[in-house]
Amino acid sequence: MTCDLLVLGGGPAGYEAALEGAALGLSTTLVERDLLGGTCLNRGCIPTKLLLGATAAVEELAAQAKVRVAAGSISTDMAALCTRKDRLLEATRKAMRQKLESLGVTVLSGAGRVLRPGLVRVDGPEGAQEVPYATLILATGSRPASFPGLAPDGAAVLDSDGFLGLTAMPASLLVVGAGFIGLEMAQAAHRFGCSITLLDALDRVAVQEDPEVSAALLSQCKRWKWDVRLGVKVASLKTVDGRAALTLDSGETLSADKALIAVGRRPNSADLGLEALGVELPRSGFVPVDEHLRAAENVHAVGDLNGRLLLAHAAAHQARYAVRHAAGKQPGPYAPGPVPSILYGCPEALRVGRTARELQDQGLPVQVSSAPLAANPMAQAHAQTQGFVKVCWSHGKVAGVTACGYDVSRLATTAAILVDQGWTRDQALELIFPHPTLDETLMAALAAEPKNI
Amino acid sequence: MTCDLLVLGGGPAGYEAALEGAALGLSTTLVERDLLGGTCLNRGCIPTKLLLGATAAVEELAAQAKVRVAAGSISTDMAALCTRKDRLLEATRKAMRQKLESLGVTVLSGAGRVLRPGLVRVDGPEGAQEVPYATLILATGSRPASFPGLAPDGAAVLDSDGFLGLTAMPASLLVVGAGFIGLEMAQAAHRFGCSITLLDALDRVAVQEDPEVSAALLSQCKRWKWDVRLGVKVASLKTVDGRAALTLDSGETLSADKALIAVGRRPNSADLGLEALGVELPRSGFVPVDEHLRAAENVHAVGDLNGRLLLAHAAAHQARYAVRHAAGKQPGPYAPGPVPSILYGCPEALRVGRTARELQDQGLPVQVSSAPLAANPMAQAHAQTQGFVKVCWSHGKVAGVTACGYDVSRLATTAAILVDQGWTRDQALELIFPHPTLDETLMAALAAEPKNI
Repeated sequence: MTCDLLVLGGGPAGYEAALEGAALGLSTTLVERDLLGGTCLNRGCIPTKLLLGATAAVEELAAQAKVRVAAGSISTDMAALCTRKDRLLEATRKAMRQKLESLGVTVLSGAGRVLRPGLVRVDGPEGAQEVPYATLILATGSRPASFPGLAPDGAAVLDSDGFLGLTAMPASLLVVGAGFIGLEMAQAAHRFGCSITLLDALDRVAVQEDPEVSAALLSQCKRWKWDVRLGVKVASLKTVDGRAALTLDSGETLSADKALIAVGRRPNSADLGLEALGVELPRSGFVPVDEHLRAAENVHAVGDLNGRLLLAHAAAHQARYAVRHAAGKQPGPYAPGPVPSILYGCPEALRVGRTARELQDQGLPVQVSSAPLAANPMAQAHAQTQGFVKVCWSHGKVAGVTACGYDVSRLATTAAILVDQGWTRDQALELIFPHPTLDETLMAALAAEPKNI
Repeated sequence: MTCDLLVLGGGPAGYEAALEGAALGLSTTLVERDLLGGTCLNRGCIPTKLLLGATAAVEELAAQAKVRVAAGSISTDMAALCTRKDRLLEATRKAMRQKLESLGVTVLSGAGRVLRPGLVRVDGPEGAQEVPYATLILATGSRPASFPGLAPDGAAVLDSDGFLGLTAMPASLLVVGAGFIGLEMAQAAHRFGCSITLLDALDRVAVQEDPEVSAALLSQCKRWKWDVRLGVKVASLKTVDGRAALTLDSGETLSADKALIAVGRRPNSADLGLEALGVELPRSGFVPVDEHLRAAENVHAVGDLNGRLLLAHAAAHQARYAVRHAAGKQPGPYAPGPVPSILYGCPEALRVGRTARELQDQGLPVQVSSAPLAANPMAQAHAQTQGFVKVCWSHGKVAGVTACGYDVSRLATTAAILVDQGWTRDQALELIFPHPTLDETLMAALAAEPKNI
């Protein structure tokens, strides 16, 4: 029997697509070749936050120790944390499966491949089956990128999947790639006492962020006494005598117990049979989609797979739209509100909407107002007063918010609303921000005199 | 020379009033009899948050220890914290004074008293002076309430001012009054290892909150092994042999190193010469105001003094309105948006807009939707999964948000916008909440099926 909606992939996008399909009364089948929850739940955001959350006290204590208010020692039991992590993730997967099944979604284990328009073959542990569909949602996600000479080797050289699979933290770690994934995982390791060497081919960390955010993050890396090498190229990285051995283009060699390669992600698009749909993949492998997130007739590609934004919440939002669009409930093009991007840890970094540079590149007028965290009483209370909140204005309306510092992720949802609604300064001044909160530094940035840049 | 704007009190309301006066080009004088920053900065919110912030690691560690992921010990140096607190508060006062003076505000030390409409006498350390005014803003705030038999005695029985003045934490503490002040200060003491006995005449803690919030807070008090006595009356409380000795109406006696009386606050309205303005004070002492926050012609009373809402951010917002109203810039009645109320600590509690009970009392239709924190990955990461977020709806729009649990204060500003704008469920579902965040439990509560109560 043809299912109304067939979803390939059970990560944040696929799960949301299946829920929305069921909510709309469509007969829905979801195909997952590995674990429900996908990268985010099993090998990405969530296990990383479990590492950072479990060690939050370490950073809080370090900050108070630095101002000589507190002293002490904390040891985190990595094996116990892994057991807890496995239990929590298993419970979440079970809850996801129960919810899908309670809504009548058929969940198949296996890898799906398009045979021809309207027909997918699923190869699973119990053999192969053909599933005819009316609408297909491709949501197969992404995996850690690797390159010749820069690939996990099953020993001391790991990618993020391998790092999150560790059951003991190494004493030293080389981190290749200073993006969000590298920075979060390095911080987690640092809190276990691991010595960190951070390398990137570019000349700043977190290169997608506002340069001031990159500078603030770099300062913190140095305060942690990380060995940070920017603008360097890795000539080779491999396991030698059980340790990670890295050679730079300059000939310099570095070694550590383990190395983490965090140089981006690649889409899982190769084995989907897309050629049967007439889809031609570009070199990047990301599936091209139109303004309705369609890759072909009756086929949408959502989430990491289309490469628009590699964020779980963006993926879920796209998925919901795609199903509603396919069902004729949302005819217009996909036009999401601003999508917050957050780096976790201490400090955190936040970006919502457009940066000053993006506005300039689009030929739009741009003004910037900002406020430091230094005077914020909550930042003071946690003895972490570095950082700032910056608001980008265009035509007198909030167009973007960028921040770096203690707990700035808490500004994300409010900032998303401000950007989405294009608040004016006068509107912002009417809102009552609770006192004392970190949020007041956003208020101060909104109230500060905007300056041309 | 007559000043355009005379402000009595340099707390959150008075400070904001003076800034707004200066911004509007009014010749402005601010009179403060004690310290700039008032109760909030010097004897209230801020020192309490410094205590809670300095000990945040203690609670984070305790939560991870409970799930056997971490172990360790932390000692907080109360004397060092006091020194740091004094330094931070002094710096904030200095910055406030500099900002006032840079804007041309005259700052006078002393107590102001109305002699007749248009004239105030200021008695200060350098003698008395008379200050004629065109507009007067009364913002003299409040002080801890006490009653016969329930008053600080300069020894072991303290009010919140006395508690925040301690330079060493007692080993045991009786807390009389289970409102926000008592709960926050008791938590701070608890984190120093102090043994807590919490008493209240009412039958629940945090009585102004939703009953579910009270219940969740009470559960946590019990998990901390506090001795909680609700529905009890204190017959006497005094210092005996250097310790606090409390007798209940039942005859039972309790003792501890110190006692904290936290039974509300009273306005500083007695010595303002209000009779010269024809103002008659009610028994409560709170200054009656009209819909424009006016106590008399050309006289506004704002902040704690008028008793509307004893919150710093409400006070500042009222003050800004009052000055703008006096200057003819904001002719309409005072109609603030929703004012968030936050209890800090672990858990936190949050209230924005109206509770289900308040809506019912107003004869409005009410529905409630809610979501538990248990499934939230950030709550799981911090091993603090108790609590919930609850949304109250009226006529299909968000009318209030109430929450209790780990870090729920981060929902406050977003919730304030949702309540202020009366978001519908469909609007909320279009907003992209970042993943993973605590905020997603607000999203889940917004998405959950509303139920009649």
